[in-house]
Amino acid sequence: MLIVMKPDATEADIRRVLDAIQTLGLKGHPMPGAQRTAIGITGNQGAVDPSPFADLPGVAECVRVSKPYKLVTRDLRPDKTVIRFRDTGAEIGGREFAVIAGVCAVESREQTRSTAQAVAEAGCRFFRGGAFKPRTSPYAFQGLAEEGLKILAEVREEFGLKIVTEATDEPALDLVEKYADVIQIGARNMQNFSLLRRAGRARKPVLLKRGMASTVEEFLLAAEYIMAEGNYDVILCERGVRTFANHTRFTLDLSLVPEVRRISHLPVIVDPSHSTGTREKVIPLARAGAAVGADGLLVDVHPYPERALCDGPQALLFDMFREMMGEVRAIAEIVRR
Amino acid sequence: MLIVMKPDATEADIRRVLDAIQTLGLKGHPMPGAQRTAIGITGNQGAVDPSPFADLPGVAECVRVSKPYKLVTRDLRPDKTVIRFRDTGAEIGGREFAVIAGVCAVESREQTRSTAQAVAEAGCRFFRGGAFKPRTSPYAFQGLAEEGLKILAEVREEFGLKIVTEATDEPALDLVEKYADVIQIGARNMQNFSLLRRAGRARKPVLLKRGMASTVEEFLLAAEYIMAEGNYDVILCERGVRTFANHTRFTLDLSLVPEVRRISHLPVIVDPSHSTGTREKVIPLARAGAAVGADGLLVDVHPYPERALCDGPQALLFDMFREMMGEVRAIAEIVRR
Amino acid sequence: MLIVMKPDATEADIRRVLDAIQTLGLKGHPMPGAQRTAIGITGNQGAVDPSPFADLPGVAECVRVSKPYKLVTRDLRPDKTVIRFRDTGAEIGGREFAVIAGVCAVESREQTRSTAQAVAEAGCRFFRGGAFKPRTSPYAFQGLAEEGLKILAEVREEFGLKIVTEATDEPALDLVEKYADVIQIGARNMQNFSLLRRAGRARKPVLLKRGMASTVEEFLLAAEYIMAEGNYDVILCERGVRTFANHTRFTLDLSLVPEVRRISHLPVIVDPSHSTGTREKVIPLARAGAAVGADGLLVDVHPYPERALCDGPQALLFDMFREMMGEVRAIAEIVRR
Amino acid sequence: MLIVMKPDATEADIRRVLDAIQTLGLKGHPMPGAQRTAIGITGNQGAVDPSPFADLPGVAECVRVSKPYKLVTRDLRPDKTVIRFRDTGAEIGGREFAVIAGVCAVESREQTRSTAQAVAEAGCRFFRGGAFKPRTSPYAFQGLAEEGLKILAEVREEFGLKIVTEATDEPALDLVEKYADVIQIGARNMQNFSLLRRAGRARKPVLLKRGMASTVEEFLLAAEYIMAEGNYDVILCERGVRTFANHTRFTLDLSLVPEVRRISHLPVIVDPSHSTGTREKVIPLARAGAAVGADGLLVDVHPYPERALCDGPQALLFDMFREMMGEVRAIAEIVRR
Repeated sequence: MLIVMKPDATEADIRRVLDAIQTLGLKGHPMPGAQRTAIGITGNQGAVDPSPFADLPGVAECVRVSKPYKLVTRDLRPDKTVIRFRDTGAEIGGREFAVIAGVCAVESREQTRSTAQAVAEAGCRFFRGGAFKPRTSPYAFQGLAEEGLKILAEVREEFGLKIVTEATDEPALDLVEKYADVIQIGARNMQNFSLLRRAGRARKPVLLKRGMASTVEEFLLAAEYIMAEGNYDVILCERGVRTFANHTRFTLDLSLVPEVRRISHLPVIVDPSHSTGTREKVIPLARAGAAVGADGLLVDVHPYPERALCDGPQALLFDMFREMMGEVRAIAEIVRR
Repeated sequence: MLIVMKPDATEADIRRVLDAIQTLGLKGHPMPGAQRTAIGITGNQGAVDPSPFADLPGVAECVRVSKPYKLVTRDLRPDKTVIRFRDTGAEIGGREFAVIAGVCAVESREQTRSTAQAVAEAGCRFFRGGAFKPRTSPYAFQGLAEEGLKILAEVREEFGLKIVTEATDEPALDLVEKYADVIQIGARNMQNFSLLRRAGRARKPVLLKRGMASTVEEFLLAAEYIMAEGNYDVILCERGVRTFANHTRFTLDLSLVPEVRRISHLPVIVDPSHSTGTREKVIPLARAGAAVGADGLLVDVHPYPERALCDGPQALLFDMFREMMGEVRAIAEIVRR
Repeated sequence: MLIVMKPDATEADIRRVLDAIQTLGLKGHPMPGAQRTAIGITGNQGAVDPSPFADLPGVAECVRVSKPYKLVTRDLRPDKTVIRFRDTGAEIGGREFAVIAGVCAVESREQTRSTAQAVAEAGCRFFRGGAFKPRTSPYAFQGLAEEGLKILAEVREEFGLKIVTEATDEPALDLVEKYADVIQIGARNMQNFSLLRRAGRARKPVLLKRGMASTVEEFLLAAEYIMAEGNYDVILCERGVRTFANHTRFTLDLSLVPEVRRISHLPVIVDPSHSTGTREKVIPLARAGAAVGADGLLVDVHPYPERALCDGPQALLFDMFREMMGEVRAIAEIVRR
Repeated sequence: MLIVMKPDATEADIRRVLDAIQTLGLKGHPMPGAQRTAIGITGNQGAVDPSPFADLPGVAECVRVSKPYKLVTRDLRPDKTVIRFRDTGAEIGGREFAVIAGVCAVESREQTRSTAQAVAEAGCRFFRGGAFKPRTSPYAFQGLAEEGLKILAEVREEFGLKIVTEATDEPALDLVEKYADVIQIGARNMQNFSLLRRAGRARKPVLLKRGMASTVEEFLLAAEYIMAEGNYDVILCERGVRTFANHTRFTLDLSLVPEVRRISHLPVIVDPSHSTGTREKVIPLARAGAAVGADGLLVDVHPYPERALCDGPQALLFDMFREMMGEVRAIAEIVRR
């Protein structure tokens, strides 16, 4: 159920509704908006009886929710969620087109620093770099772990970039939460429900990648797992789905972006690097991601991709990256007009 | 095999090579380019012996082709193919971003005329309209046939638009060739090899849609069927592929565009209408099609979509269409810079 | 609409209903069953008014059909359709498990004869062999055409086998109808609606293969196209669908068999050869096809597959084929018990 | 690398090789076979130098492994792995066709007991029942957790059935290892690499389900993760993959079974329940699973499916289950002949 408060409801009114929800052993999720606050209820088995809430001061209406998701929907929060990093003014989901660029895997201080410098000079505010790498083979390079996170933290200090990095399990998430600014959950973990719940208890925003065979409903329900624990700062990321098409590693499904917009208030970005797997397709699909209306991109860059320990063929060279930045910004400007 | 002529080879040199090919019972396909002409050879079983050609005047080199396709490749024709309609100056594959807009099915003179007027006023040079509709059910509306083609021909006269319309079988192709400017082969017929061969003998350009489960190689080989008969004016069209994703009718695979560019000289356009199936996703994906570097779009428009006999939910209203045109042109401009 | 006749309705009663249908400009399709005859009506735009039929002698009830298909359904014909070849006693859809075996392509009289002999000796009653081959590349072997059909006709005479062969377009279908016993429509032509209609006007049974990206509904509607023209002898064939899985050419979707059973009276067989593409998987999947309850199989056999002009790696050797026959018959026996 | 021992190599010879491997900081994995023992080496970066091993007593040869997986392959272990439960004589991968049947979710003692009784009476030796359920929605029934495991343990005592149950995360795996006989890793966790490693350190066999968009290589590498930690008792399970086909929940890819056989020594079973999602298709596909050569099945049964908390529509009724058991045993007998 969803309790919509009146535009003039006070903090005390909202507090009283949350108390009434708690009294029933349920959990209330207040979502303030420009016009009014709505309160989602989770923890119920079956339908919630609206009668304890209907007459409370400040309550406009009680809406039964028939969809499988609640907290992700525009019904609960008509305004878009904007993830804000107040110290630097960076944001995801706001007016600025948010490009998160960096290395697939942190391999060394030097490789990470030189990439971060190029990323910062191109005007990006977010840096990505993997310290924990989920690899298909147990014998492949699995990342530098905490040592990698420390390098990322240094790079943040030096270049003022916000750090986005993946947590592959709960111990990794503990460390990522400590060192990074945004916790990434990878496609292979999109339905690792314990990890989603742990991310929901973290105090940092979560970047959730779509599973490679995930429907929109499953994707939104994965975000719902995070939000149901109280973390409402979730960024969705389209990174390609598995199909018969064999000219790219995954088929980038850009129609997800308008579909998410229709249903949800959450920001959504596009990863043109992991989906295509080859450098020459990254720039065209990055432009397409901006054009389709995404809030940003997640892009691999590397100073010398031929020596990369992971996914080298898809990493942009620095000058290609600068070219891409110019194009996607111009396109994002047209879309936002 | 591929015979590359010297930059200064004369018409007579080329003629002599073609004669030598014919003498062997094979077929030569000359492809003039900005720098030089190349001549593809088809009709051979197994490898062609280069010795009869190597010493002919004007021959630069004889290249063995190991790929399954020959005539579609950049090896044969490094420059992009541009389809030109000299009387109106319209072109596909050239500098101008080519939007082909119109009705899914021609239903009446009035519906077709009013749409054509809106399309022309928005500055488009191409009009689409189906007179032969391939329908999944034998009991669905199958199009107005020749009566529809006549309406399309009237619209051409009145508004100066080039007509693009589908031929579903050989008798239909005979009529379409007579009335229209571009012959469309639909996704369901992408491997109807007899129809492809017939289109290859037509004197009009062919717009070939990708099959819903077609790989890039299969798609290019379908174009090769047309070209092997001597019709080199083929336009490829991405219209979405079948996947598990259920929020759109088909998943638009925009990565096809840079992949075709990498291999082929043929122009490639994008159909955001049939892939998504819902109006609100058409504009975002039309923008993405322009941004990914396509040569144009194929878009459904309808004066009153709620009454359309076919695919109404995906047709843009006139004002949405005008809005789209402004956006896609601005984006195409950025891409071409 | 569907008109169900009373169990004791006479031929004259049925005749009268068909006349009444014709009077309305529609087409009646009588389907005699063990208990009663039902008559499907096609050719209508919108719903048919039952009043002209309701009171005719012998009419039990008039049933409105809400599904997109009519003639393929068990509503119209509760009993299974059995395709009978009276002279040899062979049948498809009846008690006997029908194996259609033979060469992918007819290459020569000798290759065809030796395979037919092996097929006949193993107790099969049906021989397959392609004279018209739909090939992805315009430069691949396209079949021996009428010469191949003549070889097939000789083989029929010599070994008493019924001949199943593919028609790739309408001129080919004219020839196939003349020489063969069953007309095959291939997967790539499953939505070649003109060809389906032509097959619907043929006097021979039609073996229709599922398109590689076809839903069950689309498959049944393709059969409906054939039946709507008056040819009710349609055999459906599952031959694998396109998916991301790359260890076989296509993913054999055996669940189609019980799904077709649930909806339709038409017989359904399984092709384990084209789906897997490698010999060692053909026998396991042939057994699975028998076990899932199919009415038969379509299997490639070749005397010396390493020299086959088409799909050699999937053809069974003669002794493997005999082994397969023993296994699938034993399994079919268990299923039919 | 793979070190193949001579047929007459002694325990001491093997011990010496393992010590030499450990000296290099690597891990040795001895796989005894009927003819000889082979020893896989993991933990290396890049190729292993064979010289320290080549001359050790009992070593026949050192084989470089070029495939991404090592321990799962027939190269390492030509004989099939048989999982044996010595106290009851039950086995998976041996001569007996192993049916694992039971409830999707343990809901109550009564529901579990009555199902276990039916399962035992039908001659099954394995019981499945979920205590930890990975659910797409955070608001769906998530299982009885340890309480459910206790019910399962009671059922084992009472009916002598081996218990198979899913562990959804590491704390759950600790409990499952304590209470159950086989640890199931679900499809959504097939690439939860931390959980795979934890399962690799468990002392119980692991039943690993194929991910819904997993290639065979990815599936085998997931098993390799478990084996690389020292647990060699892995059972693979095909449970359907995601495709466009919408008449079943997932498309059961039975060709996986012969493909796994070709590459690996691990046993492989089939789950016809979760793939189809509807009861009437479970029996046909269970038969097909036996026919394709699987080592067993995983099947849902329920005393009153209409009241099931999870996946009721796919659960067999008791009498359907008994019918299925008779059929699959008879078919498995034919296959094993």
